[in-house]
Amino acid sequence: MHIDLGWTIQEWQDAYRSAALTPRDALPALLAQYPADDPAWISVVTPAQLQKQLDELDALLASVAGDLSQLPLYGVPFAAKDNIDFAGIATTAACPEFAFLPAQDAFVITQLRKAGAVLMGKTNLDQFATGLVGTRSPYGEVPNSFKPEYVSGGSSSGSASVVARGLVTFSLGTDTAGSGRVPAGFNNLVGLKPTRGALSNSGLVPACKSIDCITVFAYSVDDAASVLQVAEAFDRRDPYSRQADVSAPRSLPAQPVFGIPASIPWFDDQQAAAAFASARQQLTAMGVTLKEIDFTPLFEMAALLYEGPWVAERMAAVEAFHRQHADAINPVVRAIIEKAANFTAVDTFKAEYRRMALLRIANDIIGSVDALCVPTSPTIYTREQMKQEPILFNSHYGTFTNFVNFADWCALALPGPLRADGLPAGITLIAPTWQDFALVEFGRRWQAFAPWTRGATGKALPAPAALSHDTPAGWIRVAVVGAHLSGMPLNTQLIERHALLAEQTTTSADYRLFALPDSTPPKPGLLKVAAGEGAPIRVELWDMPLTAFGSFVGLIPPPLGIGNLTLADGRTVKGFICEPWALQGARDITEFGGWRAYIASLKS
Amino acid sequence: MHIDLGWTIQEWQDAYRSAALTPRDALPALLAQYPADDPAWISVVTPAQLQKQLDELDALLASVAGDLSQLPLYGVPFAAKDNIDFAGIATTAACPEFAFLPAQDAFVITQLRKAGAVLMGKTNLDQFATGLVGTRSPYGEVPNSFKPEYVSGGSSSGSASVVARGLVTFSLGTDTAGSGRVPAGFNNLVGLKPTRGALSNSGLVPACKSIDCITVFAYSVDDAASVLQVAEAFDRRDPYSRQADVSAPRSLPAQPVFGIPASIPWFDDQQAAAAFASARQQLTAMGVTLKEIDFTPLFEMAALLYEGPWVAERMAAVEAFHRQHADAINPVVRAIIEKAANFTAVDTFKAEYRRMALLRIANDIIGSVDALCVPTSPTIYTREQMKQEPILFNSHYGTFTNFVNFADWCALALPGPLRADGLPAGITLIAPTWQDFALVEFGRRWQAFAPWTRGATGKALPAPAALSHDTPAGWIRVAVVGAHLSGMPLNTQLIERHALLAEQTTTSADYRLFALPDSTPPKPGLLKVAAGEGAPIRVELWDMPLTAFGSFVGLIPPPLGIGNLTLADGRTVKGFICEPWALQGARDITEFGGWRAYIASLKS
Repeated sequence: MHIDLGWTIQEWQDAYRSAALTPRDALPALLAQYPADDPAWISVVTPAQLQKQLDELDALLASVAGDLSQLPLYGVPFAAKDNIDFAGIATTAACPEFAFLPAQDAFVITQLRKAGAVLMGKTNLDQFATGLVGTRSPYGEVPNSFKPEYVSGGSSSGSASVVARGLVTFSLGTDTAGSGRVPAGFNNLVGLKPTRGALSNSGLVPACKSIDCITVFAYSVDDAASVLQVAEAFDRRDPYSRQADVSAPRSLPAQPVFGIPASIPWFDDQQAAAAFASARQQLTAMGVTLKEIDFTPLFEMAALLYEGPWVAERMAAVEAFHRQHADAINPVVRAIIEKAANFTAVDTFKAEYRRMALLRIANDIIGSVDALCVPTSPTIYTREQMKQEPILFNSHYGTFTNFVNFADWCALALPGPLRADGLPAGITLIAPTWQDFALVEFGRRWQAFAPWTRGATGKALPAPAALSHDTPAGWIRVAVVGAHLSGMPLNTQLIERHALLAEQTTTSADYRLFALPDSTPPKPGLLKVAAGEGAPIRVELWDMPLTAFGSFVGLIPPPLGIGNLTLADGRTVKGFICEPWALQGARDITEFGGWRAYIASLKS
Repeated sequence: MHIDLGWTIQEWQDAYRSAALTPRDALPALLAQYPADDPAWISVVTPAQLQKQLDELDALLASVAGDLSQLPLYGVPFAAKDNIDFAGIATTAACPEFAFLPAQDAFVITQLRKAGAVLMGKTNLDQFATGLVGTRSPYGEVPNSFKPEYVSGGSSSGSASVVARGLVTFSLGTDTAGSGRVPAGFNNLVGLKPTRGALSNSGLVPACKSIDCITVFAYSVDDAASVLQVAEAFDRRDPYSRQADVSAPRSLPAQPVFGIPASIPWFDDQQAAAAFASARQQLTAMGVTLKEIDFTPLFEMAALLYEGPWVAERMAAVEAFHRQHADAINPVVRAIIEKAANFTAVDTFKAEYRRMALLRIANDIIGSVDALCVPTSPTIYTREQMKQEPILFNSHYGTFTNFVNFADWCALALPGPLRADGLPAGITLIAPTWQDFALVEFGRRWQAFAPWTRGATGKALPAPAALSHDTPAGWIRVAVVGAHLSGMPLNTQLIERHALLAEQTTTSADYRLFALPDSTPPKPGLLKVAAGEGAPIRVELWDMPLTAFGSFVGLIPPPLGIGNLTLADGRTVKGFICEPWALQGARDITEFGGWRAYIASLKS
């Protein structure tokens, strides 16, 4: 059996559902196709380790009575960066002397396996996740998947490479200063860096424990979002795990405003500059307004991370090992970690005060736009060039990634127009805390407008799925009938509350619609009547955060209120009702079938 | 003119409103009554400085056209701890060599003065707010206001003393590890330590900048709450200022559960133990359930603050001064500050990781009860005894205060039963972040049940005001008619959302009430009818956080909904309405005047 490389999650699901394939056939065959001596892997699963997972997958399927819809990642092959624990395979953090054999899966690995995903191997990284290059590992340099003489980016170098080359469908990376985004940019992948604490770090070798994030690499925005949804759960055992803010916006405006850097240091890389100029044109063509912003306070924040006391977090993570085996550490990584000794507790608190002051400014900056949009990296170097300036050139890659975790923001690296030399050069969107799914929503639009191919495989991707019609947890669906419909005068009350249009439909046939007299702006009143005396009335269903719904209800004037409407398909949703006293003498406009048609009739 | 000492805010307002008194008469007379050589003050306002404030107060009154109701602290004399800036008076932090003349008032002072308060002087403190004793100051030891041989408590020693002796109506202190609570306990005062960031620290000499809080000393819970309401505002210039969570609970349950320490180290102080036992009895008599809790994780948290790297914050605050004038620092304070040198950046991050792990446990502890209740201090020593063990005995005072700011909680120190020797021994309630006004609400109940006298003056206090009938900002008022009334089956939907009963009243005379058929639990439907055809129907008005209101509306089944009701006095509030289709054949119960009377009629 030969397995095509580079399938999406949906394509695996379709193959398994059609019964053309089973994981027990497909995944050993896929494993057998992996090239030997691939520096992107630190360890590939043995056939026995794979069989054990397949046995467990059978048991999992039996536990849901064979219902594949309950296992959103059933039989989907993935990889994990080798600083994330998988029970029974050594975790090395790219330092063989540091390796240990974990007894338990990391919390996120457990989440993925409960959804049916199957681990194919552990991937190479810049040692101790210290670097943005992919060259700082005794397991070898990871070549760029497009042009091997260039760097793959890091520190999640192997995780990007194995997805880009089609060996797995998605992978986990980590991101402290950009390690989940730079390799996505250099390998034409989606790199989703969630809000800090969205994914548990239990079972992760820390880099800077206070800001580390586990990340997702995938071909499509849909796949990255699916993995995030599966992996995200509050973990009591990780003190940095956080309950998500379920009321955060889940979409960007139809015509968003993005803040872009007023001045970009391209380090003489004209091709990178041209690729970003092309991405800007496409964004503008999509209706995005680009607003130039001074990034200086964000750069100052980034400098604190690399030049300030936070390097001591890296030392705190490996202190005992460093005491005994300093010689075993990559010299560049060791030099960075040992800078910890330059900082006292007083230095640390003073730096934290500065970070807090900059954070206020940073949040003003991002609050002035819908999101930030930056080149994922302003340049790329060859592996040979990196040998000349291993620290300086590394720092160039992090220009627009370093400050994001410090500011407690989320980010989504997306493929963009390729450079003239054929290398990838992505863009990254950055949003405030917990707006991960708002970035996903726009990412889908970007993918539909400017489609890309799967990593380095050259294969086209299917179009992104339409917006889900499920109401998210913590949200409520409300039917609007009149002045709140799209484009009507009060629709802004929905938009301001980050509501999303989910569906257009009608009520059951038991309603009559009236034009309320003396109502400004004009509004209708909806009245449920006896069976056979009404008609279906057009409504729009909007999803709104529950926490914002109360203030929406608070705005509704008499004689209107929020009750419950019966829809044509029998569902009951929240919706506008009307006190009957106000309908005395009101014009019955049921014949129009809806408020929009009635309003149109007045104008014609 | 002789001014009685120890007035409440309300008593000042009454005197000014009756025109029996003006600030221009009263406050210079009060100033003239102050004893000379009082170690509680570092500086008292000069007559000229007072006149200048009185001139500004005249201008303020003119700006509101003489409407005193717009100036809630009009002419009320207060004091501020001498680490809080007042323009034109030196800030010393109890170190004369450190003194500087601020050009601007601290942010909170500005807030108080905009409300009409008048500063009478700056008060003594443990130098650099380092201590809980009131003896670590070159301006002298502040005696206990009940028995001068005992300590006043600190570091806000002078601020407690001048209120306790009636010299001002309220004062500002600060609290890092208990400095706003221990002196309240030792001087029979209310000590309100708000949630971190509720009061701006702009214009405060920091102790531990990341956790410092400005606090309020007052005689009554009402006064402390009034000052907090005036002083609280988001301050963009203070990076540690935070927007309050307006949806946080503003009351405790009618019969709350308080967590108390399973084991209390009394340090052989039987009188303190007996006073707390007496307080426990009174709480139980009020209907409070006391649940013993293991405080070990909280003590471990406290140890981090005093024995861990956070001492480096104290050094960071005075680093330049320490470099040049270390000899000018109190030797005990200096020894504490200089412990900063023992800690590296690595130590600091490791301690922060431990704090985060303990925070998860701490929040589980406080989440298992409605609030914690502790003795404010487990013992008190004489000033002579303190000389023997200046550090150890200091640490005893902080047993139940140290961990609170670290855990990001708020606290309210309240007078309790006096000790057998006549010294005060208060209790402190502790609640999660932003539940300050829930503590205030219970504090009013405690004051009504177990009244105390004003500080050390021996004068009785008026009973606390009833709960305010104003709907707080960020809350919404909703009229309930049926199953949501107090004691009815669905009332829990209000209680769970921390709603507060604000008022009992009736609708206008334009409504009819129906018993809905086939409704479980039984519910009424309210219908607005033409003038002259209805009657007033009894309703309860409840205030609910807007963020919780949406989920409440979400629960309401057909045919009910939330619309707008007209009340007897003409007000319109949100309230239950009913779709008319459901009233076909329903029994008209308008004659009962309300749902409660109708239900009672069924039972009789």
